[in-house]
Amino acid sequence: MNKSLLGVALLAATGAVSAQSSVTLFGVVDTNLAIGRGTVADRNQISNSGNATSRIGFRGVEDLGGGMSASFWLEAGLATDDGQGNATNSNNQTTGTGAAVAGRQGVSFNRRATVSLAGAWGEVRLGRDYTPQYWNLYFADPFGNVGVGLPMPATYDFGGFTGSTAVRSSNGITYFLPGNIGGFSGSLQYYLGESPQNGGATEDDGTGAGVRVGYESGPVYASLATGRTQYAAGNTRQTNAVATYNFGVAKVGLQVSRDKNGPLTGKGWLLGAWLPVGAGEILGSYSQYETSAAGNPEGKKLALGYVHNLSKRTALYTTWARVKNSGGAATALNGATTAPNSSSSGLDIGIRHRF
Amino acid sequence: MNKSLLGVALLAATGAVSAQSSVTLFGVVDTNLAIGRGTVADRNQISNSGNATSRIGFRGVEDLGGGMSASFWLEAGLATDDGQGNATNSNNQTTGTGAAVAGRQGVSFNRRATVSLAGAWGEVRLGRDYTPQYWNLYFADPFGNVGVGLPMPATYDFGGFTGSTAVRSSNGITYFLPGNIGGFSGSLQYYLGESPQNGGATEDDGTGAGVRVGYESGPVYASLATGRTQYAAGNTRQTNAVATYNFGVAKVGLQVSRDKNGPLTGKGWLLGAWLPVGAGEILGSYSQYETSAAGNPEGKKLALGYVHNLSKRTALYTTWARVKNSGGAATALNGATTAPNSSSSGLDIGIRHRF
Amino acid sequence: MNKSLLGVALLAATGAVSAQSSVTLFGVVDTNLAIGRGTVADRNQISNSGNATSRIGFRGVEDLGGGMSASFWLEAGLATDDGQGNATNSNNQTTGTGAAVAGRQGVSFNRRATVSLAGAWGEVRLGRDYTPQYWNLYFADPFGNVGVGLPMPATYDFGGFTGSTAVRSSNGITYFLPGNIGGFSGSLQYYLGESPQNGGATEDDGTGAGVRVGYESGPVYASLATGRTQYAAGNTRQTNAVATYNFGVAKVGLQVSRDKNGPLTGKGWLLGAWLPVGAGEILGSYSQYETSAAGNPEGKKLALGYVHNLSKRTALYTTWARVKNSGGAATALNGATTAPNSSSSGLDIGIRHRF
Repeated sequence: MNKSLLGVALLAATGAVSAQSSVTLFGVVDTNLAIGRGTVADRNQISNSGNATSRIGFRGVEDLGGGMSASFWLEAGLATDDGQGNATNSNNQTTGTGAAVAGRQGVSFNRRATVSLAGAWGEVRLGRDYTPQYWNLYFADPFGNVGVGLPMPATYDFGGFTGSTAVRSSNGITYFLPGNIGGFSGSLQYYLGESPQNGGATEDDGTGAGVRVGYESGPVYASLATGRTQYAAGNTRQTNAVATYNFGVAKVGLQVSRDKNGPLTGKGWLLGAWLPVGAGEILGSYSQYETSAAGNPEGKKLALGYVHNLSKRTALYTTWARVKNSGGAATALNGATTAPNSSSSGLDIGIRHRF
Repeated sequence: MNKSLLGVALLAATGAVSAQSSVTLFGVVDTNLAIGRGTVADRNQISNSGNATSRIGFRGVEDLGGGMSASFWLEAGLATDDGQGNATNSNNQTTGTGAAVAGRQGVSFNRRATVSLAGAWGEVRLGRDYTPQYWNLYFADPFGNVGVGLPMPATYDFGGFTGSTAVRSSNGITYFLPGNIGGFSGSLQYYLGESPQNGGATEDDGTGAGVRVGYESGPVYASLATGRTQYAAGNTRQTNAVATYNFGVAKVGLQVSRDKNGPLTGKGWLLGAWLPVGAGEILGSYSQYETSAAGNPEGKKLALGYVHNLSKRTALYTTWARVKNSGGAATALNGATTAPNSSSSGLDIGIRHRF
Repeated sequence: MNKSLLGVALLAATGAVSAQSSVTLFGVVDTNLAIGRGTVADRNQISNSGNATSRIGFRGVEDLGGGMSASFWLEAGLATDDGQGNATNSNNQTTGTGAAVAGRQGVSFNRRATVSLAGAWGEVRLGRDYTPQYWNLYFADPFGNVGVGLPMPATYDFGGFTGSTAVRSSNGITYFLPGNIGGFSGSLQYYLGESPQNGGATEDDGTGAGVRVGYESGPVYASLATGRTQYAAGNTRQTNAVATYNFGVAKVGLQVSRDKNGPLTGKGWLLGAWLPVGAGEILGSYSQYETSAAGNPEGKKLALGYVHNLSKRTALYTTWARVKNSGGAATALNGATTAPNSSSSGLDIGIRHRF
């Protein structure tokens, strides 16, 4: 449950009455035991964000009248096992995130830092936010793209196949369609690499754009997205589609990815299922991803999990996953290390608490 | 509008009633398109703080009775285009701010970190805060010392002419005159470089003091300030005066700076104007600054802007500026690069939202 | 006084009524003049945390029904003299905290980052928190283990004798006894170094455990704790006991430490006294600590202080301390430097304000 720091009663108390405005403090603390097994080295950790990314944020909306509103959103990822913040990226390039120094990462608003104007015509948003081409990786994944259940397409993305803008972009301007236009949703984003414009080959590095269009009707959700970021060494491109159907007793989803990174291509898919059981939910996914690099490295992953809700805000959860590598791939889970073409498995057991 | 997190109604709810106490969460999210043009390289960015520095802060006041109060203020600058925080300076010396690592700067309370005791006799404040000698650079500047309209005296200061204490000091103790003594205001600050006292030449580096006296009466405001920071390599000194007059239909201001950095001197002035028009305000300034370095480098700058208020908290703004360099100077705007003695221009278009 | 950001009145205002839930913003701003005197170099600083560690935090509790609750706690140390945050440690090893960069340390939740489930059976807590073996260093110290009055056992600990887990651990799981079992309290903690499990000698570095048992009855408090952290280069061990007695007119405490760091042993004790006088309190302690390193380095320290409460939240304080070194020790106070076997003294004068 989010806390609205500014409500009618509080405003009245402080003499600054404005019933339409509010600021909200919100967050997640998700900490877990994370066990990883691989053929080279195992790993046991108290880790974080197995069910939802640990975070703290501040957001607010101001009613400007006439159907217009202004809003802001500042959201910082947290390592709730050791207290560090998360780094961000300043220029949508690999040079935009420097080397980590152990124990010293302060809190940055790496997850989102935006200001928006919205009206009946939609919303314009400036700053750092998700890219449109990321969302489909999230929609069809029962594990919410975090933890040991993270599907292969996303694993490859986070691991670098589509690089710095695989999930978020900095220095962006995004237009969102308004909320209620017959089930359609969509966004168009343009972001800047901010290099000096001196005619050099890399002057557009980190500059790119993405677009997403979705449709929802009753139990059906479908969405298509594509994005491209420019680099002199070879552009990256992400294209993906997702469809989910809610049968009531269960929800299933399918997601397909086709990516490029310079001369290399990557392709993968994910099948996911959500099965409510009493106060909890059983989750499962099968996913695979393959690239055109030498040997055609490929990973195939099965993930199974159970989330037990103690309340709307708090849950206990466990996820088990196993990845099979081939073609020289060596993806390992939960910090383990595994030899090329061998398998790795992992287990998360944790608590997720929203506030 | 600031949110008082602690009001009568809320206190009553939590059983800790103290009508005189409050804690406030406040901030600014200001993100803009920043275009820079120079003879060597142009630059296009989604940047931040074109109209007011993006920030988040926490502050509070406790009534101690008998006219006394205690208060705290923690305020952190933010890069709302990419989510990073801002660095601070630990010792009022160049060694007090190390090299940046891209994407990794966490939030620090670089803008202000203070605790105060106040009474009818004034206020004593400990910690990191503005120096008295900075304020005159702000008072006469229609662009509030931020964005592409930043005047030349301040540009030189931020660029290093008067060094680490040009704007703020750490490790300081400040006395402020009480608020209502016939229009007079003033502050006296002493700050420490905190080097080991071992008789070495640099043991007072970063230690200094500043004083400011202001006078306000109806439409008139005038202020004089001076400050000095000790360095073995040569002290820095800032002396400046400002006068503003509010004609009602417009306000105008004049500011003059005389600075020293070791053997070098710097001098400059600023003429600024604020012209309210309906829900907005037209802003303009002309400024120049020259130093005694080889060739007498000098910059002359014209800035014009318009701020359109959507509410008391939210505005759209645009600022255009152009700087002419001579004597070997190469000041460039909005991240552009320009050759010595050539010009540079820049444009900001953005949204500023206070909370 | 802490601010509950979420109370009945505020929830009612925002339409999300849940009388049992709350989120609290809290903190301390403690800034002081810190004078250090030594035979090699003196030091004068505006420093922080002379009476209580400067900090900002967010915490909350959710009632889950049936006597169960979930809670979170995020608490960040602050350098309120210059605005920096504090670093944390990621792996309970010296490699878990990298080199500092001046002025650039952002805020991390280094003091505590936890999520808990609690019931009539006690509390299970995951994340970064104090180690059980630390608490006895705090209980018997009138100066709260901060500032120039910090006792010798703690000084050696902070200085490294028992290393990275002397005060806190990351990646931990802790069980706490429930609050009311006949005056007994206690906790058992296990924490992980998170190294790869590859059969190497250092694979358990940073992994350890601690236990504490306490008993309180009327004016008597007594507690015993021990902890061990594994390192290939030699385990560290902390064992300590504390007893305090409150005579009403004054409270006295005695604490004894026996520590190990690989082949070295360390031992020390502390005698402390609290003497309330009107709105204030006189504090005093004598402590000494000696290790088995070559020459048997030893420090003996006397500390005297006075805290004057302006309110429950705000105090003025001063502490004077002097340390006598022998056996080659060179402990110096407040940033001074002193030659081996010579003395050092220090003085704190400051303001502590809680919010």
